[in-house]
Amino acid sequence: MDVIPDAILPKGFTANAVACGLKKSGKPDLALIHSSSAALASCMFTTNKIVAAPVTLCREHLKKNKVFHAIIANSGNANCFTGTAGIADARRTAASTASLLGVKPISVLVFSTGIIGKRLDAGKIVSALPRLCAGLSLRGIDAAKKAIMTTDTFSKAASAQCVIGGRRVTICGIAKGSGMIGPNMATMLAFIMTDAYITQGCLDRSLKEAVRETFNCVTVDGCMSTNDSVAVLANGRAGNKKIRSGGDAAVFARALKAVCLSLAKMLARDGEGATKFITIHVKKARTFDEARTAALAVANSPLFKTAVYGQNPNFGRIACAVGASGIDVSEKGLRVHMGPLDRKDVVINISLSRGDAACTVYTSDLTPEYIKINAEYN
Amino acid sequence: MDVIPDAILPKGFTANAVACGLKKSGKPDLALIHSSSAALASCMFTTNKIVAAPVTLCREHLKKNKVFHAIIANSGNANCFTGTAGIADARRTAASTASLLGVKPISVLVFSTGIIGKRLDAGKIVSALPRLCAGLSLRGIDAAKKAIMTTDTFSKAASAQCVIGGRRVTICGIAKGSGMIGPNMATMLAFIMTDAYITQGCLDRSLKEAVRETFNCVTVDGCMSTNDSVAVLANGRAGNKKIRSGGDAAVFARALKAVCLSLAKMLARDGEGATKFITIHVKKARTFDEARTAALAVANSPLFKTAVYGQNPNFGRIACAVGASGIDVSEKGLRVHMGPLDRKDVVINISLSRGDAACTVYTSDLTPEYIKINAEYN
Repeated sequence: MDVIPDAILPKGFTANAVACGLKKSGKPDLALIHSSSAALASCMFTTNKIVAAPVTLCREHLKKNKVFHAIIANSGNANCFTGTAGIADARRTAASTASLLGVKPISVLVFSTGIIGKRLDAGKIVSALPRLCAGLSLRGIDAAKKAIMTTDTFSKAASAQCVIGGRRVTICGIAKGSGMIGPNMATMLAFIMTDAYITQGCLDRSLKEAVRETFNCVTVDGCMSTNDSVAVLANGRAGNKKIRSGGDAAVFARALKAVCLSLAKMLARDGEGATKFITIHVKKARTFDEARTAALAVANSPLFKTAVYGQNPNFGRIACAVGASGIDVSEKGLRVHMGPLDRKDVVINISLSRGDAACTVYTSDLTPEYIKINAEYN
Repeated sequence: MDVIPDAILPKGFTANAVACGLKKSGKPDLALIHSSSAALASCMFTTNKIVAAPVTLCREHLKKNKVFHAIIANSGNANCFTGTAGIADARRTAASTASLLGVKPISVLVFSTGIIGKRLDAGKIVSALPRLCAGLSLRGIDAAKKAIMTTDTFSKAASAQCVIGGRRVTICGIAKGSGMIGPNMATMLAFIMTDAYITQGCLDRSLKEAVRETFNCVTVDGCMSTNDSVAVLANGRAGNKKIRSGGDAAVFARALKAVCLSLAKMLARDGEGATKFITIHVKKARTFDEARTAALAVANSPLFKTAVYGQNPNFGRIACAVGASGIDVSEKGLRVHMGPLDRKDVVINISLSRGDAACTVYTSDLTPEYIKINAEYN
């Protein structure tokens, strides 16, 4: 599957971004994605028990409603741990956006990212909405992908196309995330737009399957965020025969997974302070989950991550992390191979001698710069 | 309970240390603790599935045998992930020590700490044993506590005395640990000597109870080691009425726990690269384990640890870590209070509004120095 590392909006979508004053730097911090046709939505959210107000609101909208028109997302403030005031702020954001777009408030999905525990100044968002809506365009997605960044050092976008029933279907994703990237859905913001005509069930299954092996296999610091979410909007504008199951579903799922994998790898590559992009292959596990547990235990070990940073081929730390991961591994069955450490991209191969399942996890090294970024971030 | 931050060997114990050449620095790296009377032993080991050869050997000795005479411990090499050769090396160390002391090999407990995955040069240990044994003395414990250090910046010892049936009982512990300090028994080496006369059952129960709230409530980097162990030797030389249960057992358990707590706090205070000693109190939990889970989730969060390093009062990161810990907490029920961050000792109070249980966990901050130490360590 060819994936283009760029945002190519599917039919019927437009986007835009502005600076509304939430980021101290004055950089763009408010993004809008609009579908002129009603779109199905499928979302996956963090499993953190403390969730941000916009996550609560999105869950409510997804429960009450089946068609969606817009994604509004701000950076600079997570609107989390903000109580009932935070919910009201998210609701106000949705209502104002809906009013300007001429749609129902429950057809708007709201997302926030940034600092936790500070009240969101929704007034700034509301004031900026008219010019945000007025400037919607096809190329506005480039501004949108930048406006959702926090500590990211580069913006993240990926697009893929597939042919279903003779019609070209486009899938376009943008994502943000760099720190507080942990291994349990969902650990960043990712918005995926497609013009595929597809059933809700097939869209949900395709997303769940894609997330399992992509976003849920990325970790920077093992910290599961309170906010982060993956949302797919599918507006059906490609005009393909409706995707329900079988071969068409497989083609779509493959393209969606390719876009998610491309974005997920970008998240790891842009890990806060990272100097290395690390791929950890675990094979010969009993199950995928067992392989993933072992791989994530290594990926989240600060001792492993600092060893890679220091180009220190200390494979004992890998054995230690696998042994502590909770899986039933034996010293005799464990094989560890570290690729060269003097490169930007480092590959670790681990074999457990327990079965035929495998999993690949992506991560970054732990560096003094990670600490500098997070000691100062507020 | 008054605890003296020094090593005061109980009756019947002597110790010594020498440099046998395992540490590149040439510093002392081989410690011996000897009890002239046969002693009961109680040990707890790491729950890592990959364990060092000396852990395997100790388990074998503890299974086959009930009376012990010596602890031999080297730093500079963990003798872990070293296969059957590693077991043979540990066995040779025990046999040589036993031969020089005139005791059975199975009455010797062997411990190692240092790098994982490199063969231990047991020949160096065997060559140094004659002078190590010849120099055993009461004050040799000061050399022993230093010889077990790896990246520790200070040596760790604590002693307490209690009166049982009119006789003074002494409990003396030494410990090492600074990195690879994680929260699941046992994450360092700790050797505790007592002259208490006690039943095996009571000794085992007292140790288990003490470890649960002390060593198992300390974390530096969440990395559970392959080697680390707590061993208590009780030689009965205090001449007290045998401790079995009831009041005497409670007095002994309290003193043992005080020694363990004192050592555990030193481990956190000496966390690799630490600039802060952090105490995390979690209260109003359903159970002790729930409180501990929440406290350790915060203590192991790199985002929390870097925030404390940066004196950045980002309490949202605490809420995020508690929410991701797996316990069933609600935003409404969660209360977080951070003490002043501009001090060496930082106190965090967290209330869950779920019950009456509490737990206190000790940790350190995450600093660029931690990364420097672990990027270079080999």
